Amino acid sequence: MSGEGSGGVLLGIDLGGTQIKTARFSSAGEWESESQASSHGHENPKEIFGALYSAASDLIGDNRLAGVGICVAGVFDPQSGKIVNSPNMPTLNGFDLREWVRSAFGEIPIHMMNDANAAALGEFHAGAGTGAESMFLLTLGTGVGGGFVIGGEIWEGVASVAGEVGHMCIQADGPLCNCGAKGCLEAFISSWALIRDANAIARKKPGSAIAGLPSLTPEDLAALAAQGDEDANALWEKAGTMLGIGIASLMNLLNPERIVLAGGLAKAGDLLLKPAENTWKIQAFDRAHETTSVRMGTLGEWAGVRGAVQPLLNQRLLKP
Amino acid sequence: MSGEGSGGVLLGIDLGGTQIKTARFSSAGEWESESQASSHGHENPKEIFGALYSAASDLIGDNRLAGVGICVAGVFDPQSGKIVNSPNMPTLNGFDLREWVRSAFGEIPIHMMNDANAAALGEFHAGAGTGAESMFLLTLGTGVGGGFVIGGEIWEGVASVAGEVGHMCIQADGPLCNCGAKGCLEAFISSWALIRDANAIARKKPGSAIAGLPSLTPEDLAALAAQGDEDANALWEKAGTMLGIGIASLMNLLNPERIVLAGGLAKAGDLLLKPAENTWKIQAFDRAHETTSVRMGTLGEWAGVRGAVQPLLNQRLLKP
Repeated sequence: MSGEGSGGVLLGIDLGGTQIKTARFSSAGEWESESQASSHGHENPKEIFGALYSAASDLIGDNRLAGVGICVAGVFDPQSGKIVNSPNMPTLNGFDLREWVRSAFGEIPIHMMNDANAAALGEFHAGAGTGAESMFLLTLGTGVGGGFVIGGEIWEGVASVAGEVGHMCIQADGPLCNCGAKGCLEAFISSWALIRDANAIARKKPGSAIAGLPSLTPEDLAALAAQGDEDANALWEKAGTMLGIGIASLMNLLNPERIVLAGGLAKAGDLLLKPAENTWKIQAFDRAHETTSVRMGTLGEWAGVRGAVQPLLNQRLLKP
Repeated sequence: MSGEGSGGVLLGIDLGGTQIKTARFSSAGEWESESQASSHGHENPKEIFGALYSAASDLIGDNRLAGVGICVAGVFDPQSGKIVNSPNMPTLNGFDLREWVRSAFGEIPIHMMNDANAAALGEFHAGAGTGAESMFLLTLGTGVGGGFVIGGEIWEGVASVAGEVGHMCIQADGPLCNCGAKGCLEAFISSWALIRDANAIARKKPGSAIAGLPSLTPEDLAALAAQGDEDANALWEKAGTMLGIGIASLMNLLNPERIVLAGGLAKAGDLLLKPAENTWKIQAFDRAHETTSVRMGTLGEWAGVRGAVQPLLNQRLLKP
């Protein structure tokens, strides 16, 4: 009960497409406890936020709540506090998130941000970015997101769009991306891109091990590659090479002290990292790849929750 | 003679591959006078710096010199003050630039920087970036350089490599770049890339207007396009499209308030800008291209000289 009689506790909330994660932190940012709930099946905001309120109340307990940091998969408007476009939870489009936090928890400091930016802040302050002055995080998952941290703060850009490394083009005449553009990094190294390529192999080679998989998931494709399957290895080799192209561009363009890889696909480890490294060593300037180090994230899927409370700590919004 | 009895004068020097430009500024950064000399034919440092010293002395006249800002095409080491690699003036490799300035002008504040970064600072503080909080400059010339300005200062990266937008990959399997990588932006939209493509047309179509040009220069190719030649227009259309791909990536990744285009090729104007704009409107997120504006630079080839003195003004290195 570190919050009692002290600065109170902070809640970090990560409102993801499949999971809602919540954690309690001391007012100094120390991790205290956490909770998560599936957001599948909660089809309307009332259900989603009912479950969230219940989980948050349990975590807060008898402590005084001093602030809420919340991150969202998708686009929101920092002025109005509304969710503009949540691709994985479309029923939340237009939902006034700030108003909900106020009505649920009262007039306390609230900070909202994009989930990839939150994960970047989390890794920077409490994970693989610790000790660096600048860091670029790539989240490799269903889609590809990113966040650029300079001196402890996110570079948001003029309209909070910055960090969208998944939609940096690496092959002008490449495959169509979900965003409508061609050849984005995400169109080569995301779950959907991997599954698209695996399906193409399954169609082309009906007798292949990939065609024989009961379902095509990145996990299954990684397991198959680990067993030595050539098709699966070629898939990861190609994805890793394209990741290396993107990383090389970040090195030349931004030369951050560190680049951190997170998200579900990062679990593939060397399957991705080895071809990526072989590529960035050719594609980036020597001075760039020799001074920007690449690491795997250490906070896993909890990076966003940790990062979501960071702006409350940075901005000293909390009163004692 | 604004320097007399006041804070003295500043010299900005742009040590380029074909021209050495020098300008005198008041200690408040106001432009006072300028001079330029060809650096062609000066084959050794003694000749190059003899000409520079003479030009600088004339500009300083009776004024007290309060500081020198100098920018260089190529790589230098900010610690030692030495030129590491000057692609267009290889005789200067290893030359101790800071020591030369000290021996020529005495123990005064000196600031050295990369020429593209200097041009970015110049446009930001006195050109097309005025009024913006962040700006990315692309210099489209023999090569493609860049500089990212945040809040008035260059984002240098951990080892002063940042800004190398010319070596952001936009076509993973694209043509080989001078840097040894494949498909860099520079390999599509630089003088050498344009001339390479024009030569290919000349070989393929010996009867074409391009094949009939006495020499292949960007200026001639622009003039030919302006006369309605289809081949020349197709060349610029392709280059502009690839430029648009790169600009879209910058919008999504960094969302700066402004992107500024400078360098010799930018003089092609709408020949480049129209296809580029058509492309970034498709490739970039709406919210990104609607909030990042693109402008042509206004300082021309003098942007670097102006920017080179900016760090002296920013850092208040000058004593009254």
